[in-house]
Amino acid sequence: MNNENIQAPFFVINPKTFLIGNELLDLARYANCLAKQYHVTLLFTAPHPELGNIVRECPNLIVTAQHMDSILPGDSMGHISAHSLVYVGVQAVVLNHADHPMTLTAIAKAIERAKEVGLLTIVCADSVPEAQAIAMLGPNVILAEPTELIGHNQKSDRLYVTSTIEKIKKVNPDILVEQGAGIRSENDVTEFLELGADGVGVTSGIVKANKPKEMMEKMIQAVASFQEKRK
Amino acid sequence: MNNENIQAPFFVINPKTFLIGNELLDLARYANCLAKQYHVTLLFTAPHPELGNIVRECPNLIVTAQHMDSILPGDSMGHISAHSLVYVGVQAVVLNHADHPMTLTAIAKAIERAKEVGLLTIVCADSVPEAQAIAMLGPNVILAEPTELIGHNQKSDRLYVTSTIEKIKKVNPDILVEQGAGIRSENDVTEFLELGADGVGVTSGIVKANKPKEMMEKMIQAVASFQEKRK
Amino acid sequence: MNNENIQAPFFVINPKTFLIGNELLDLARYANCLAKQYHVTLLFTAPHPELGNIVRECPNLIVTAQHMDSILPGDSMGHISAHSLVYVGVQAVVLNHADHPMTLTAIAKAIERAKEVGLLTIVCADSVPEAQAIAMLGPNVILAEPTELIGHNQKSDRLYVTSTIEKIKKVNPDILVEQGAGIRSENDVTEFLELGADGVGVTSGIVKANKPKEMMEKMIQAVASFQEKRK
Amino acid sequence: MNNENIQAPFFVINPKTFLIGNELLDLARYANCLAKQYHVTLLFTAPHPELGNIVRECPNLIVTAQHMDSILPGDSMGHISAHSLVYVGVQAVVLNHADHPMTLTAIAKAIERAKEVGLLTIVCADSVPEAQAIAMLGPNVILAEPTELIGHNQKSDRLYVTSTIEKIKKVNPDILVEQGAGIRSENDVTEFLELGADGVGVTSGIVKANKPKEMMEKMIQAVASFQEKRK
Repeated sequence: MNNENIQAPFFVINPKTFLIGNELLDLARYANCLAKQYHVTLLFTAPHPELGNIVRECPNLIVTAQHMDSILPGDSMGHISAHSLVYVGVQAVVLNHADHPMTLTAIAKAIERAKEVGLLTIVCADSVPEAQAIAMLGPNVILAEPTELIGHNQKSDRLYVTSTIEKIKKVNPDILVEQGAGIRSENDVTEFLELGADGVGVTSGIVKANKPKEMMEKMIQAVASFQEKRK
Repeated sequence: MNNENIQAPFFVINPKTFLIGNELLDLARYANCLAKQYHVTLLFTAPHPELGNIVRECPNLIVTAQHMDSILPGDSMGHISAHSLVYVGVQAVVLNHADHPMTLTAIAKAIERAKEVGLLTIVCADSVPEAQAIAMLGPNVILAEPTELIGHNQKSDRLYVTSTIEKIKKVNPDILVEQGAGIRSENDVTEFLELGADGVGVTSGIVKANKPKEMMEKMIQAVASFQEKRK
Repeated sequence: MNNENIQAPFFVINPKTFLIGNELLDLARYANCLAKQYHVTLLFTAPHPELGNIVRECPNLIVTAQHMDSILPGDSMGHISAHSLVYVGVQAVVLNHADHPMTLTAIAKAIERAKEVGLLTIVCADSVPEAQAIAMLGPNVILAEPTELIGHNQKSDRLYVTSTIEKIKKVNPDILVEQGAGIRSENDVTEFLELGADGVGVTSGIVKANKPKEMMEKMIQAVASFQEKRK
Repeated sequence: MNNENIQAPFFVINPKTFLIGNELLDLARYANCLAKQYHVTLLFTAPHPELGNIVRECPNLIVTAQHMDSILPGDSMGHISAHSLVYVGVQAVVLNHADHPMTLTAIAKAIERAKEVGLLTIVCADSVPEAQAIAMLGPNVILAEPTELIGHNQKSDRLYVTSTIEKIKKVNPDILVEQGAGIRSENDVTEFLELGADGVGVTSGIVKANKPKEMMEKMIQAVASFQEKRK
């Protein structure tokens, strides 16, 4: 697997642990239909124990783990290995999320492991220098999101969005840039894509919406429209 | 779920990450047959992404997670919640393994979460004072294992075994005590049970045996014989 | 050193990192005078690099480190060893503070190290079960403080205070119990001592007071009065 | 403070925790004399509680902390702040040593804090990509050292040495590169400097030498000779 597997513009649905069990599976199934209907690249994250279930039922989603450790198979216990993820059909993994910050060494090794087994990597960055540092490690995607905005209504400002994109591409133009903070509507999705983001990721904007499925669909439609126009 | 669900003498197969994917599932299926054949309480641990698969195929095993965090559902990402584990059918969880040491606060909270959702807790202890400290937190099982012996051929000495059992039961007689280090044969299993262990756990003794399945069966037979005699 | 070195009622001034450098030294010097004037056992905590300075100038204070690791001298780097602390004249150490939670194993080992070199240990606990677990490890003092109240104006409620004291003493009557949360005045100090606390610890109540030195003096007077009455 | 304060070639004496107390101070005093005698830039690391003592007695050394956290003064406890270090006269700090790995975010923030207060930063890197990632964060010095060689007799191979230097300078030519692993003699020092290292750091090579002071002097002489030749 390589960058060809993920096509910009892409959309990431990241329910974190707001939804668990049947509620999560239900949202995933709906996303699975939308992926097919709108021909949009959709990544869908889930807690580790539930990944296999979603893979089985949602062939149109790039099912994504919310964290991975850099361990190799062997005498280690309680950590998440790339091999287990691949075995259950996971295709991508988020690393270094603000809720699970990793040491620099662990990020570097986890990206290495992921490449060995063909997992896509989405590595979270807070500041611009951190984003550039991560770019040096060669992940597939960098999710640029100012930590202090996560979970809040405020969007990343336009300067943050454009400068993270520019600075990351300058280090390595092959890395895709996802923007995340504070997306609350389909208009926000369009705005970020027009500013140059390769992808957009949403948590609260969907799970805390009055009608999560409807909001998710509108956002995905926005991605599809942007995709259409760009052709 | 409560202590009635776990019956001494019990046997814990803990392949850590030595086995992954089909190899792990294959061993689990065999253990599942042995649990039925020998009427022995078997716990079987697995990495988080693979737990659901094993639950589905192995109804006679108490499928056990190799770690759990103390998070509640909500705005957290990359950690293992009790709710996801229960959703996929997991019945027990190992906490504070030497490969994933937890803060005291996290152990206390994880035990609380586990009780809320009906997960059995197996908490690892190194020294006798640590075992007694953990006993105060009221887990179902304490796995007493001197950290420096994990993964080696040397068994815990008899004094360690008897004194951890005695000291734990003195704090709380309802807690079951599992012994783990250096079990390499069915005779080791019998020895530990005769010294008073409620259960015995094995990793290397099985996964590094010449014939893992045969060795596992001999060890389970040893548990069954001990069970029989004790009646 | 042993429990004889710390005499109830004692008072702990814990400026955390609110005060640094000359401001911290200035408060320490004043506390040093008060310790002599009021014949009260005073512990004074400071960041690691500044401990030596305070020891040199404040012979009447039990100078206390804000954290310690469980390392032995040798091939380790960047961690705080008991031996370095003792070398610069530190007499006590706080372990497992909510800002620096430790694994259970690290707490157990750090207490061991501290005993070997004669450092007093003050171990922080959040809930009652955690306090009892820590009691099993035999520290000199347990600081019982509900994590959610740290840094806030709300005091621990009377039931928390009396039940932590009772439950800790039940495990080991030699352990002294310090209460900490939300002490804002000399009356709070008296109240906690009358409820049975062996010692009282204050951060915000002093560093955020309008006149920190005056407030510190009033609180120490309250300890002295209580001490007098109890004779 | 800035890069002008550290002049290549420089030499780092890093006793970790092999030496503590008077033994450490004794070695530092000797290094202090050698710094003056040979006009060589010497950095000398020490555990946090002992830094102040060494600063007071050794004005010719760049006294260096073995770790620092990214905290700001305020409601934090048990961590090392830049402000405390500067207050006691420390001039440099090692970050992300293999014994105390830091999250990427913490490294980025600690470098920021250090710059604010004028501390030199020496950030450890394991692999080449990690070294380049760190270079993006703009530290003063990168210590390139393959983690698996730390504490062993094997030196970094010549290719590792030259490629880390080249790759770091390519990202940012102002960053000085220190090489560390396996230096056991004055010849090793010369070899690494001739390969292009701006500085060389030693632990075991000195503390485990038969005559640590003599070996330290020989190594410093090697730096002085190299310096002389280069003029």
